[in-house]
Amino acid sequence: MPSERAMKTGSACPPPPGPGKLRLYSMRFCPYAQRTRLFLAAKGIQFETINVNLKDKPDWFLEKAPLGKVPVLEKDGKIVYESLVCNEYLDGIYPDKCVTPSDPLEKARQSMVLALWDAKVIGFYYKLMTGKEDERPALGKQFLDGLQFIEKALTQPFFSGNKAGALDYNLWPWFERLCMLKPIGVELSVDKFPQLTAWMERMLQLPEVKTCYFSPEAHAQFGKSWMAGSPDYDIGLEE
Amino acid sequence: MPSERAMKTGSACPPPPGPGKLRLYSMRFCPYAQRTRLFLAAKGIQFETINVNLKDKPDWFLEKAPLGKVPVLEKDGKIVYESLVCNEYLDGIYPDKCVTPSDPLEKARQSMVLALWDAKVIGFYYKLMTGKEDERPALGKQFLDGLQFIEKALTQPFFSGNKAGALDYNLWPWFERLCMLKPIGVELSVDKFPQLTAWMERMLQLPEVKTCYFSPEAHAQFGKSWMAGSPDYDIGLEE
Repeated sequence: MPSERAMKTGSACPPPPGPGKLRLYSMRFCPYAQRTRLFLAAKGIQFETINVNLKDKPDWFLEKAPLGKVPVLEKDGKIVYESLVCNEYLDGIYPDKCVTPSDPLEKARQSMVLALWDAKVIGFYYKLMTGKEDERPALGKQFLDGLQFIEKALTQPFFSGNKAGALDYNLWPWFERLCMLKPIGVELSVDKFPQLTAWMERMLQLPEVKTCYFSPEAHAQFGKSWMAGSPDYDIGLEE
Repeated sequence: MPSERAMKTGSACPPPPGPGKLRLYSMRFCPYAQRTRLFLAAKGIQFETINVNLKDKPDWFLEKAPLGKVPVLEKDGKIVYESLVCNEYLDGIYPDKCVTPSDPLEKARQSMVLALWDAKVIGFYYKLMTGKEDERPALGKQFLDGLQFIEKALTQPFFSGNKAGALDYNLWPWFERLCMLKPIGVELSVDKFPQLTAWMERMLQLPEVKTCYFSPEAHAQFGKSWMAGSPDYDIGLEE
């Protein structure tokens, strides 16, 4: 297992993973990479991780993944990137404990919730993190209004039914990070978000969520370094 | 078959399609809706169309599809929106002549090309259409640089192999509209884009492409009305 420390510009390209071995290129605090880490944990897949410095990206990383983002999977000389693409690919090549729905309508329903998430929620999340103080009340309202679409989509214990599945894992990373919006006055109240707040409690109990979890303090520490323009990818790791 | 004229704010909600019948909500010149029209044509699926005025959207349309965009499918009380979601859903419920790949790696490859398309090409297409004249040379270069990723992804007669498939249909609508960039000096040369220019010739021969086709003149006329802020959705239709 290589070091967890993020590899940056100038680093030597790591040798390819051995035959049949799966490798994940990740960044420890990236919510998109966490989507894939959750899939891997839920399915019990063995893999190795190489963390990448997304501010000073190694050339070899950009050659593998021209979008320059994580997650990226590598196996037997094949590269797959984009979180949702990686996750469906994992269910395709490791069909045990498949978490992607096979029913066409249920699959479409989950994809439509993610489309609402992208269009109505996620942009405001990042604007809240980086926006000016006087813009925050309006952005906070837009963010919470958007989240009502997600609240309404949750009609069972989990987004995927009675058990957590693809949609739960693909949404969770930003809910784990909601704590970062609390200091700026944005949080989910039980009365306005009864389904989502109860779901968050249920998610926190799942072994796969615990495996991929960072504490509010770690997220806050990373967020602070990121907003200051010098993200500390190696928080909590030994030298 | 209802009129092809676009329905707008204040129109009465059309009664639902009959049992087992498929309906497409569309806009005649929308490239995203064309993706789904191409799937429907390639698969030979019977459907009815309701065109929607996307500037003055009917309330009943926004209730069905909260993102307010086309394509939208309706069948037996179920609604599906977002072009890629609609298309995979169609292959799921009408498995005859399936054009979505079943191999996980090939499916991932096609999705990655679409991710490159979204990140490296499509934004510049719209900026070129709406941007200022002095920005066009830089935007044109970025657009053509991005298209090189797509050129490199085309290593067989079609993006999907020896026959047109999902990726071909999901990319084609913007290639049909490339003619709109010609007057502002942006076009694909055979020497820089030998694969894409040959592919365009092949695509134009396909019956499904012909079925969903509008001429350069019609695209130009619609584009002009759209950029002037009063899109003419009903070009060429009788009163």
